[in-house]
Amino acid sequence: MSSEAIRAQWLAEEAEIRARLGAPGVVTLEQLRALTGLEFFERIGNGELPSVPIGVALDFIPVEWKKGRVVFQGTPKKAYYNPLGSVHGGYAATLLDSCLGCAVHSTLPKGAGYTTVELKVNYIRPLMADTGPVRAEGKVVSAGRKIGIAEGRIHDTAGKLYAFATTTCLIFPL
Amino acid sequence: MSSEAIRAQWLAEEAEIRARLGAPGVVTLEQLRALTGLEFFERIGNGELPSVPIGVALDFIPVEWKKGRVVFQGTPKKAYYNPLGSVHGGYAATLLDSCLGCAVHSTLPKGAGYTTVELKVNYIRPLMADTGPVRAEGKVVSAGRKIGIAEGRIHDTAGKLYAFATTTCLIFPL
Amino acid sequence: MSSEAIRAQWLAEEAEIRARLGAPGVVTLEQLRALTGLEFFERIGNGELPSVPIGVALDFIPVEWKKGRVVFQGTPKKAYYNPLGSVHGGYAATLLDSCLGCAVHSTLPKGAGYTTVELKVNYIRPLMADTGPVRAEGKVVSAGRKIGIAEGRIHDTAGKLYAFATTTCLIFPL
Amino acid sequence: MSSEAIRAQWLAEEAEIRARLGAPGVVTLEQLRALTGLEFFERIGNGELPSVPIGVALDFIPVEWKKGRVVFQGTPKKAYYNPLGSVHGGYAATLLDSCLGCAVHSTLPKGAGYTTVELKVNYIRPLMADTGPVRAEGKVVSAGRKIGIAEGRIHDTAGKLYAFATTTCLIFPL
Repeated sequence: MSSEAIRAQWLAEEAEIRARLGAPGVVTLEQLRALTGLEFFERIGNGELPSVPIGVALDFIPVEWKKGRVVFQGTPKKAYYNPLGSVHGGYAATLLDSCLGCAVHSTLPKGAGYTTVELKVNYIRPLMADTGPVRAEGKVVSAGRKIGIAEGRIHDTAGKLYAFATTTCLIFPL
Repeated sequence: MSSEAIRAQWLAEEAEIRARLGAPGVVTLEQLRALTGLEFFERIGNGELPSVPIGVALDFIPVEWKKGRVVFQGTPKKAYYNPLGSVHGGYAATLLDSCLGCAVHSTLPKGAGYTTVELKVNYIRPLMADTGPVRAEGKVVSAGRKIGIAEGRIHDTAGKLYAFATTTCLIFPL
Repeated sequence: MSSEAIRAQWLAEEAEIRARLGAPGVVTLEQLRALTGLEFFERIGNGELPSVPIGVALDFIPVEWKKGRVVFQGTPKKAYYNPLGSVHGGYAATLLDSCLGCAVHSTLPKGAGYTTVELKVNYIRPLMADTGPVRAEGKVVSAGRKIGIAEGRIHDTAGKLYAFATTTCLIFPL
Repeated sequence: MSSEAIRAQWLAEEAEIRARLGAPGVVTLEQLRALTGLEFFERIGNGELPSVPIGVALDFIPVEWKKGRVVFQGTPKKAYYNPLGSVHGGYAATLLDSCLGCAVHSTLPKGAGYTTVELKVNYIRPLMADTGPVRAEGKVVSAGRKIGIAEGRIHDTAGKLYAFATTTCLIFPL
């Protein structure tokens, strides 16, 4: 598929998912405890659970979730620029922290929670207001009983790589 | 000073700085090239250069800048929450990327630019909507001809540590 | 193939390569400058250039090299233990630093050099004296004009993952 | 003090400590469980517990330990070189992993153990065979109930900085 065709598809998928998302909010510990990681993403994706506040603030959404792999999509804008004329590194870090943490979460059974203890991001090329939609794709490298490790990449519709990241998550009983 | 007194002081300093900041925008390469790192922050701080778009999007500002040390301040809000009920890790990463990159920038002479090639963040405790104002303080560890390294910490008015980060920046002629 | 069959094959490959390696030493800048990254590994592998001093000190060797992917092999021993009864983390870091830096080097043309500016290692499970031979496999994630990024993994003959790492290298004209 | 005076002092301290160290070996879980982190280092330092195998392999020793700060000393040698003519990055990573993990260990009470989950090293300048003795100094940044974070630096007798590192350790009951 051409970059333009992929772009049209990504934007169509985004519109379809956005139509189902709930109002922003947070879940209770009871709600969290009762769901596997994948069930949790399903409920957010179909609007049964609230959508994510930071996703509203920086305008990005989850677009794919399966065990060990979660993808977010956003579109870089001038509103996220640093003073030097490209998107601030915090934007890529936010998308990557989302897809990496969720990739680890997607492997968890009911009753298990996680928290990100460490995130490392490599910045490869600048995101610009004309980059178009990008996807942050997180994949689990290792899911242990206490520690989960994931890696992720941000790429555009042409497959160009913008950032690469790895994370370490602590897993614990909720 | 008590945490409350520090809080009052931080908020007063923020109000004073905000009153001077310009409208958000980016600088031109010519403007950047003509200024040392410190002069660049001075011009942003006194409104001669535009304020930073991402700082508007996530509501944080620079509050201190000297050679080798730059501090940003923001106040965590529910609008930046992850679904699990605390501020998303991307918020801390954004503040830390700002103070770390700027700490390296603050050491640069006229005609030198930089880009962040790598950022690592350790998350120590969650930022919450009732945490109050926090400061992200970046300090240079090593400033070479080609590579700058900095470390930074986010702490609140009681001195509690929330996140710790290190960065690697590439330095080059503009 | 069974883990035992792979082990036999790895040890046979190691013996074959060791038979060709030269005495330990370093190369001159002139030698380095005259070779592409891959030619450099070829010359080390066939004994025309000296073998690597640290590889003698910690008993590991290169076993595969092609553009963008380099593999080292070693066998954990009690001599590399920490006081807590498993192989010290520095051993895995050394093998990973080797395969990651060499993966970046393997993409370089004549006249280009590199230096590692940053290495991050995730430790997944302990290496023990009875783990048997392990391979550290480095793969390039991104090779730019100035910065190369690679990721690597240490695994045993059963495919079990012991450590995961990423690196940032600075590339420059020699 | 001049660099030469510091060098003489460091080498004298090293000789004094080496005279007390035991033969290399590992401790049992029972021994480990019965000691606080600091008591553990005391016992290694006075030869009641074995010295550290990897320290023998790469010729470095602990020289200072107190709560939250542990220092190792070693002297770079040609035997640890990479093929490019400087000490391999694995040497610095090994010293830093030692001082960082031990800095976290030094804060632990009886019955608590730790394992390093992640180590990041920034390489600032090359260690050479004529660098002389160097110290790797690890300091705790944060010691929680489950996670310990430390930072460390390698410097020579002139105070020159060679490498900078941070680590994340998982803390657990033994």
